[in-house]
Amino acid sequence: MARIAARLPQAPDVAVGPGDDAAVVEAPDGRVVATIDVLVEGRHFRRDWSSGYDVGRRAAAASLADVVAMGGRPIALLVGFAAPADLEAEWADALADGLRDEAAVVGASVVGGDVTAADAIAVSVTALGDLNGRDPITRGGARAGDRVVVIGRLGFAAAGLALLESGRLDHPLADAHRRPAVDYAGAQRLAAGSDVTAMIDVSDGLLSDLGHIATASGVAIQLDSRDLAIDGRVAEAAAELGSDPLLWVATGGDDHAFAATVRGDVPVDATCVGTVVALDVGGGPTVRFTDRETPDRGGHAHFS
Amino acid sequence: MARIAARLPQAPDVAVGPGDDAAVVEAPDGRVVATIDVLVEGRHFRRDWSSGYDVGRRAAAASLADVVAMGGRPIALLVGFAAPADLEAEWADALADGLRDEAAVVGASVVGGDVTAADAIAVSVTALGDLNGRDPITRGGARAGDRVVVIGRLGFAAAGLALLESGRLDHPLADAHRRPAVDYAGAQRLAAGSDVTAMIDVSDGLLSDLGHIATASGVAIQLDSRDLAIDGRVAEAAAELGSDPLLWVATGGDDHAFAATVRGDVPVDATCVGTVVALDVGGGPTVRFTDRETPDRGGHAHFS
Repeated sequence: MARIAARLPQAPDVAVGPGDDAAVVEAPDGRVVATIDVLVEGRHFRRDWSSGYDVGRRAAAASLADVVAMGGRPIALLVGFAAPADLEAEWADALADGLRDEAAVVGASVVGGDVTAADAIAVSVTALGDLNGRDPITRGGARAGDRVVVIGRLGFAAAGLALLESGRLDHPLADAHRRPAVDYAGAQRLAAGSDVTAMIDVSDGLLSDLGHIATASGVAIQLDSRDLAIDGRVAEAAAELGSDPLLWVATGGDDHAFAATVRGDVPVDATCVGTVVALDVGGGPTVRFTDRETPDRGGHAHFS
Repeated sequence: MARIAARLPQAPDVAVGPGDDAAVVEAPDGRVVATIDVLVEGRHFRRDWSSGYDVGRRAAAASLADVVAMGGRPIALLVGFAAPADLEAEWADALADGLRDEAAVVGASVVGGDVTAADAIAVSVTALGDLNGRDPITRGGARAGDRVVVIGRLGFAAAGLALLESGRLDHPLADAHRRPAVDYAGAQRLAAGSDVTAMIDVSDGLLSDLGHIATASGVAIQLDSRDLAIDGRVAEAAAELGSDPLLWVATGGDDHAFAATVRGDVPVDATCVGTVVALDVGGGPTVRFTDRETPDRGGHAHFS
């Protein structure tokens, strides 16, 4: 841990960093936002597809995006790292660098961790954040009439995974699986407005995660598939592989886009993809396309 | 996670509990104490020796003790749980119950988690705590002349592990490996006094962990082995197995006793085991017995 700690600069809001029984970080709001995510080798990543640095970036992003989806400003990461005893030290160093660099995107520090031996690599990342005096944005606030918006890109990580699975390791889009490009700043601008009623980090796939909002809020959500932006590169990769790019966009996880519901005007840098409606009497799927068949949520494709 | 969340009551200082992107907990001090520990199947526990409930108690204790060793009051736990897909649901339920019950000892709640598939079980526990306006107690404050004290029991978990390894699964002391009996309240009373200069959770073994205090504080520590209490049951188990009970007490981890340095009087419920002295010119071991040979720190025996 000492070797790793030496790679980790600490921001001024860290009172006690790595190397003691616990870290101490500022929580000026008087509340702390806290979340944990686990990435496991062979399920979330493969060492022949992703570097230690890639895994660090991605593991940090998964937890940082959760804090941002609550309306929080990430401050600190804690990392549990289980790895085979014969893992090269360079891999662990690169992991720490990746965690540090992804945290730095939002001004957060890696403040502590625990390293232990195991047969396969598992990386647990806890992210802590501050609410700056605002209410947390939960999944439960969506109401009929709200618009559904997306911040950030969708379908890229699913395309990247499909490309890796087909042996296209050097395809530029394969990097989208290795390291998500998360639009933290866009989500933070959205959260700073007063019109957001619910928000979620899209980690399981858009349909699945909007389903979580619908369930928590007791509403239904109608989407128009033609409003879901399909990036040209994603469409091209789908054509190459004979896949449906809309499926990647609607059910692929791991891009860590943000889906939210807003009252009133749609912010300029968000994409409106649907509308919140009252729950049907008697049920039916709570998230559905109005213009085509709704695919099975499936979502969150792992490769094992 | 929903199944597990249903088993987890939330204290009033939890604003948002399990089920959203992140939890929100009170941090009245304006700072938060945070730590993570990982337990891995086959290294820290075996399923044929420990129940899910045992592993939950022990995993929670490891992190809660770290918060208390900083002088913090534990508020919340977050749990990363990786497990084989065919693990019985009852094992995971029991794990959650164990985490909940150990947290309840100090008034903390299990506020969130992440569950994922893996080949072997790994449990990462993050603990968060509040400082109640006091300075954190680090490892770096010990000064020459301070007394070295121990709160809680030592040698029990090492005895329990040795008994399990010799096939004595039903020996009463074997439970000391399965679930530590941590004296959180004793450590909290000690921390509430103003005379504590350094404190550590004894997880690697007393000699090793006092070594961490010595290094961080730039001091040496002298111990009298005759002041280390050896419980009668531990001595008896050592006689049965032909082991040296002092080795268990001095180098065994996992009891989560607390070692501290204090200025002035030794509190009534702490055991004084030594003295802080100035660092020798030219070095030598920084933690040593004055009355007998100092064993190799070794410490923290895992069974693999």
